[in-house]
Amino acid sequence: MTETATPIVGIIMGSTSDLPTMEGCTKQLEDMGIPYELKVASAHRKPLEVHEWASTAEERGLRVIIAAAGKAAHLGGVVAAYTPLPVIAVPMKTSDLGGLDSLLSMVQMPSGVPVATVAINGAKNAAILAVQMLGTGDEAMRQKIKDLKADMAQ
Amino acid sequence: MTETATPIVGIIMGSTSDLPTMEGCTKQLEDMGIPYELKVASAHRKPLEVHEWASTAEERGLRVIIAAAGKAAHLGGVVAAYTPLPVIAVPMKTSDLGGLDSLLSMVQMPSGVPVATVAINGAKNAAILAVQMLGTGDEAMRQKIKDLKADMAQ
Amino acid sequence: MTETATPIVGIIMGSTSDLPTMEGCTKQLEDMGIPYELKVASAHRKPLEVHEWASTAEERGLRVIIAAAGKAAHLGGVVAAYTPLPVIAVPMKTSDLGGLDSLLSMVQMPSGVPVATVAINGAKNAAILAVQMLGTGDEAMRQKIKDLKADMAQ
Amino acid sequence: MTETATPIVGIIMGSTSDLPTMEGCTKQLEDMGIPYELKVASAHRKPLEVHEWASTAEERGLRVIIAAAGKAAHLGGVVAAYTPLPVIAVPMKTSDLGGLDSLLSMVQMPSGVPVATVAINGAKNAAILAVQMLGTGDEAMRQKIKDLKADMAQ
Amino acid sequence: MTETATPIVGIIMGSTSDLPTMEGCTKQLEDMGIPYELKVASAHRKPLEVHEWASTAEERGLRVIIAAAGKAAHLGGVVAAYTPLPVIAVPMKTSDLGGLDSLLSMVQMPSGVPVATVAINGAKNAAILAVQMLGTGDEAMRQKIKDLKADMAQ
Amino acid sequence: MTETATPIVGIIMGSTSDLPTMEGCTKQLEDMGIPYELKVASAHRKPLEVHEWASTAEERGLRVIIAAAGKAAHLGGVVAAYTPLPVIAVPMKTSDLGGLDSLLSMVQMPSGVPVATVAINGAKNAAILAVQMLGTGDEAMRQKIKDLKADMAQ
Amino acid sequence: MTETATPIVGIIMGSTSDLPTMEGCTKQLEDMGIPYELKVASAHRKPLEVHEWASTAEERGLRVIIAAAGKAAHLGGVVAAYTPLPVIAVPMKTSDLGGLDSLLSMVQMPSGVPVATVAINGAKNAAILAVQMLGTGDEAMRQKIKDLKADMAQ
Amino acid sequence: MTETATPIVGIIMGSTSDLPTMEGCTKQLEDMGIPYELKVASAHRKPLEVHEWASTAEERGLRVIIAAAGKAAHLGGVVAAYTPLPVIAVPMKTSDLGGLDSLLSMVQMPSGVPVATVAINGAKNAAILAVQMLGTGDEAMRQKIKDLKADMAQ
Repeated sequence: MTETATPIVGIIMGSTSDLPTMEGCTKQLEDMGIPYELKVASAHRKPLEVHEWASTAEERGLRVIIAAAGKAAHLGGVVAAYTPLPVIAVPMKTSDLGGLDSLLSMVQMPSGVPVATVAINGAKNAAILAVQMLGTGDEAMRQKIKDLKADMAQ
Repeated sequence: MTETATPIVGIIMGSTSDLPTMEGCTKQLEDMGIPYELKVASAHRKPLEVHEWASTAEERGLRVIIAAAGKAAHLGGVVAAYTPLPVIAVPMKTSDLGGLDSLLSMVQMPSGVPVATVAINGAKNAAILAVQMLGTGDEAMRQKIKDLKADMAQ
Repeated sequence: MTETATPIVGIIMGSTSDLPTMEGCTKQLEDMGIPYELKVASAHRKPLEVHEWASTAEERGLRVIIAAAGKAAHLGGVVAAYTPLPVIAVPMKTSDLGGLDSLLSMVQMPSGVPVATVAINGAKNAAILAVQMLGTGDEAMRQKIKDLKADMAQ
Repeated sequence: MTETATPIVGIIMGSTSDLPTMEGCTKQLEDMGIPYELKVASAHRKPLEVHEWASTAEERGLRVIIAAAGKAAHLGGVVAAYTPLPVIAVPMKTSDLGGLDSLLSMVQMPSGVPVATVAINGAKNAAILAVQMLGTGDEAMRQKIKDLKADMAQ
Repeated sequence: MTETATPIVGIIMGSTSDLPTMEGCTKQLEDMGIPYELKVASAHRKPLEVHEWASTAEERGLRVIIAAAGKAAHLGGVVAAYTPLPVIAVPMKTSDLGGLDSLLSMVQMPSGVPVATVAINGAKNAAILAVQMLGTGDEAMRQKIKDLKADMAQ
Repeated sequence: MTETATPIVGIIMGSTSDLPTMEGCTKQLEDMGIPYELKVASAHRKPLEVHEWASTAEERGLRVIIAAAGKAAHLGGVVAAYTPLPVIAVPMKTSDLGGLDSLLSMVQMPSGVPVATVAINGAKNAAILAVQMLGTGDEAMRQKIKDLKADMAQ
Repeated sequence: MTETATPIVGIIMGSTSDLPTMEGCTKQLEDMGIPYELKVASAHRKPLEVHEWASTAEERGLRVIIAAAGKAAHLGGVVAAYTPLPVIAVPMKTSDLGGLDSLLSMVQMPSGVPVATVAINGAKNAAILAVQMLGTGDEAMRQKIKDLKADMAQ
Repeated sequence: MTETATPIVGIIMGSTSDLPTMEGCTKQLEDMGIPYELKVASAHRKPLEVHEWASTAEERGLRVIIAAAGKAAHLGGVVAAYTPLPVIAVPMKTSDLGGLDSLLSMVQMPSGVPVATVAINGAKNAAILAVQMLGTGDEAMRQKIKDLKADMAQ
C-alpha cells in the first residue's frame, strides 16, 4: 500500500481487524496524493516492534503518525511516547461498549504527551487532519485542504 | 497576552470562564517561545465574530488553532468549518457531566471536518500538540518537542 | 417535498442519510397540513450555506426550525446562532454510541442560545412540537394538537 | 412572583429545592417583561394538583409551560400529557448522576407527546426558548429575542 | 389473558410493542397460578385512562401492580402516584441507549413515591417479585417462591 | 435501634459508613410504627454471617428485607438468594461513579432472583416500599400508605 | 472438559449461555496444558452449590479460580468471599448495556475482597492471567507465558 | 519505602500524585510482611525507564507487579507488554470522569496481554490480590490471606 515516494505519513494499527475501517484513511491519503507507510503491530503483543517503529519514524522521513486501536487503546500513547512527531489517534468502535473505551483510552492522555484524537472510526478524518498538520509548513498541503473544502461546499 | 512576533497559534475560547484553565496552554506556549493570539468569543452568542476570526485566521499568519469550549462545545467544529488550518479542541470540564458532553461534542466530528481533540481540560497538551503540528515543517519546532521530551524523561 | 403554501416550518438536516428517519417528521407535518421546506446541508461541510439559510429563515416566512444531525451534532446550535426563531433539535441515533453523542451535543447548549431538544430519532415529535409552538399564537394550530391528543386518547 | 398582567408563561417545578436554580428563569422572564405564574408541585406527591394545574393551563391564558424537575423527572411529560401547550423541560442537576437521569427522563419522550428539553440546569435558556416560542405568532416577542441576540453579540 | 379468578396483580404497559417481552411476566404468573389483569395504555397518550386504571386498582382487588415502559418511562411513577399499592417497574430495552434511559426514568424516583425496579427487560423477575410481595401476608404465596427456589437449585 | 415488637422488616447494610444515609429508612419506619431489626455485615467480608442472617430471616418473623450497599453491591442479591422474602435494594452513592456501579450491581439481577431496587441513596423510599409490600396482605399497612399520600398531597 | 491431571484452575460460570464465550478460556488453558475443572452454577439460583464449590476449592487442589457472569454479576465476589484463592472475573457482554453492568458489578469490589477483573468477554485473557498467577511460584508456568509472548511477538 | 528483604512485589505508578492513594497498598503489604519496591514513572513521559523497569522486573526477583495510573491509564498494559509477571492495575479516580476513563483504559486489554484490574482507587485490594497470587505457590502467603479473612469475619 506504500507509494513510491518517501512516505511522510505513517499509519499504525493494533490489529489486522482494523484494516477495513482504516481503508477510509488510506483511500483519503491516496486521493490527496500523500505517500504513506502502513504497519500492523499491537502495542501489547509486539511492544519492541512498536518501540522500534515509533523511535525511528522521524528519521525515516515521517512527519505525522496515525494510530488506530480499539478497547484499552494504548497504541497512540505508546507511539507518542517515543516520537516527537504529532500522533493522530483513531479510536476503533468496539462490539460491547461502542468504542467509548477506545475513545477514553486515547483522548484522556496525561500532561506532556498529547495525542490528537478524532471520532470513533474516524479514519477519513484522520487523513484530512494529517494533511492539515502538514499544511502548517507547506502551502501545497494547505491547498489540498482548501480544494477538499471547496468540493464539500458544492 | 500576544507576544510581539506575529502570532502563529490562535487560541479561541467560548467564555472568559475558560481562561483560568487555558492558562495551562498559554503558559506552555510562552515557555516554548511560540507567539500566539487569544480570543474569547462564543460560537453561539457571537457567531459572526467567530466566523470572521476563523475565516481570516490563515491570512493573519496563524498556522494552528486551539479552541476551548464546554457543554455543547461547538466552537472547535465551527472554527474548523471556516479555515483550512488544523484545529485542536480542548473540551472543558463541566459541573454536571464532568466534561463528557464537551468531549463528545468535540471529538465526534462528522466526515470531512476533523478537529484534533485532547483530554478534558487538557490545555497544556493542546499547546504541545500545536508545536508538534508546526514541527511537521519546521525543524526548530521539532527540536522544542525533543527538548521537552528530554526534560520529562529526567 | 415543499407544499405550495408558504412554508412556515423549515427542516434542515446534516446529511441525506438522515432523510429516512426524518420522514417521520415530514409525514406528521403533512398529516397536520403544515407547509414546510426541507434542506440538507452540513454545518461543517457547508457552513456558508447553512449560515445563509438560517440568517434568512425568518424573512422567508419560517416561524419554527427543525434541525436534525448526528454525532458532534452542531447543526441545531449553529442555526440557532443565526436566527431569532425557535430551533427544535432532533439528535440522530449513531452506530457507536447510540446517539448519546448527538443528544449531548444538542441539548447542552450554553446560556443565551437554547435549542429545544427532543428524543433521539424523535422525528415525529419534532413535528408535533413545532405545531405546539405555532399554537402559542394561532388557535387553529392549537386545535390540531387537541385533535391529535384526542386521537391518541382513543 | 407573578406580575400583574395575565401570565402567559407557567413555570412548574417538582420541589422548592429547584427554586434557586430556576431563578435564572424567572429573572430572564422579568428582564424580558414576560408575565408568568409559578407553581411548586411534585408530579408524584401531588398528582391531582399537577393534573388540575396542567389541564386548566390553556384556559387560564398560559401559552407556554416550563417544567423543572430532577432524578426520574416525570413532571414535563405528565404536564404535557394534559395540555396542548408546548412544554419546556429543565432537567435538574442531581448529586449522584449529575443530572443524566433527569435529562434522559425528560428528553426521551415517546412518540406523540414531546417536551422541549434544554440543558441540565438550563433555567435561563428555558425562558429564552419560551419567548422564542411566543415569537412564532407575535412580532414583539421576536423583537425581544433579536434585542437579546444583539446584546450578546456585543 | 386474564384468568377467571379475581385478578390480584395488574400489569400495565405503555405500548403493545412491550407485549412480547412482557410475556415472560404473564407466563410466570400463570405458572404460579396468579390471576392477573393486563392493560396497555401510555401514561402520556392516555393519561386519563391510566389515572382511572391506577386510582381504582385497589378497589378492583389488585394487590400489586407491574408497570412496563421504555425511554422516558414515566408509567411506573405515574401509576404509583395514584395508588397505595406497591408498583414494580420493568424498564424496557431501547434501541438507542439500551434501556439506560428507561432504567433511570424508573428507578430514580424522588422521595415519597417509590417504584420497585427490576432489571431491563426483567419481565419474569417482575412476576416473581410480585408473588414475593404477596407472600408478606400469605403463606401460600411464600410457598410458591420456596418451590420456585427449590426448582432452581436443582 | 430495634423496637420491642417483633421486627417484621430487616435492614442489612454492607458497612457502618452506610448508616447515616440509612437513617432516612429507619426514621421513616419508626414514623410509620414498623418494628425492624438492623444488621451491618458485608456480603464479601462476612459471607457466613450474611448467609445465616438471610437464611433465618423468615423464621425470625421478618416479612421484608432492605439491603443497602455500594460499589459492586452484591448484598441484595446474596440475601435474595437465601430467602423467599422480598428484598428491597438501596444502591449507595459512590465517590467515583456516583452510584451507577451500585445501581447496576443491584438492579440488573438475572432471571429467577429479583431484588426491588429503589433510587441511589433512596433510603426513605425503601421504607415506604416495604410498608407497601406489607400492605398487600394487611389493610392497616395500606392505610399507613394512604395517610402518607394524603400528607404529601397537602 | 476436565483433564485427567488434578485440576489447578477452577472455572465457574453463572449460566450455560456463558459457555460459548468461555471456550476462549478453556481452549487457551488446554493449549498451555493446564488441567482445569468447569462448573456451571448461578450465585443466585444455586447459592449453596456455589458456596460449597468455592469453600472446598483450595482443598480440592485448585490454585486459581476464574468466574464468568453477566448483568449484576456477583459470582466473582461471592466465590472470593469463600476462598483464599485468587479469583479472576470475566464480565459477560450483555445485550442491553453491552456489559458495563457486568464489568462494574465485578471490578468495583469493596475493600478486603478483590477480584482480578479482565475485559468484557475476555475469556482467553483470563486463562493467560491464571497461568501468570501460577507462575509466581512455578518457573514452568512462567516459561509458558514467555513462550506465549514470544509467539505473539512473531 | 523498600524493605530490607528482596522485594517480591513491584509497585509502579504514573505520577507522585498517585502516592497518597497508593499508601493503602503499601500499608497493606507492610501489614502482611511483603517486601516491595516502589517506582514512580509515567509510561508516556519516561517510556524507556518504564521499559527498563518492567523488562528486568522478573530477574530482579519480583513475582507480581502493581501498576497505578489515571486518565488514559496505559501503565498497566505497557508494563504487562514487557514482563511475564502478572500485573495488577489500579485505576485512579479522576476529577472529571470519576475514573471511568482510567478503568476502561486498564481493564479492556486486548487478547493476549491481560492486566488484573481492581476497583477505582482499590489500592488496598491490589495488595491483597498480590498476596493471593503469591499464594498459588506458597502456603505461607495463602495463610496470610486466611488470617486476613478470619480477621474481617470478626
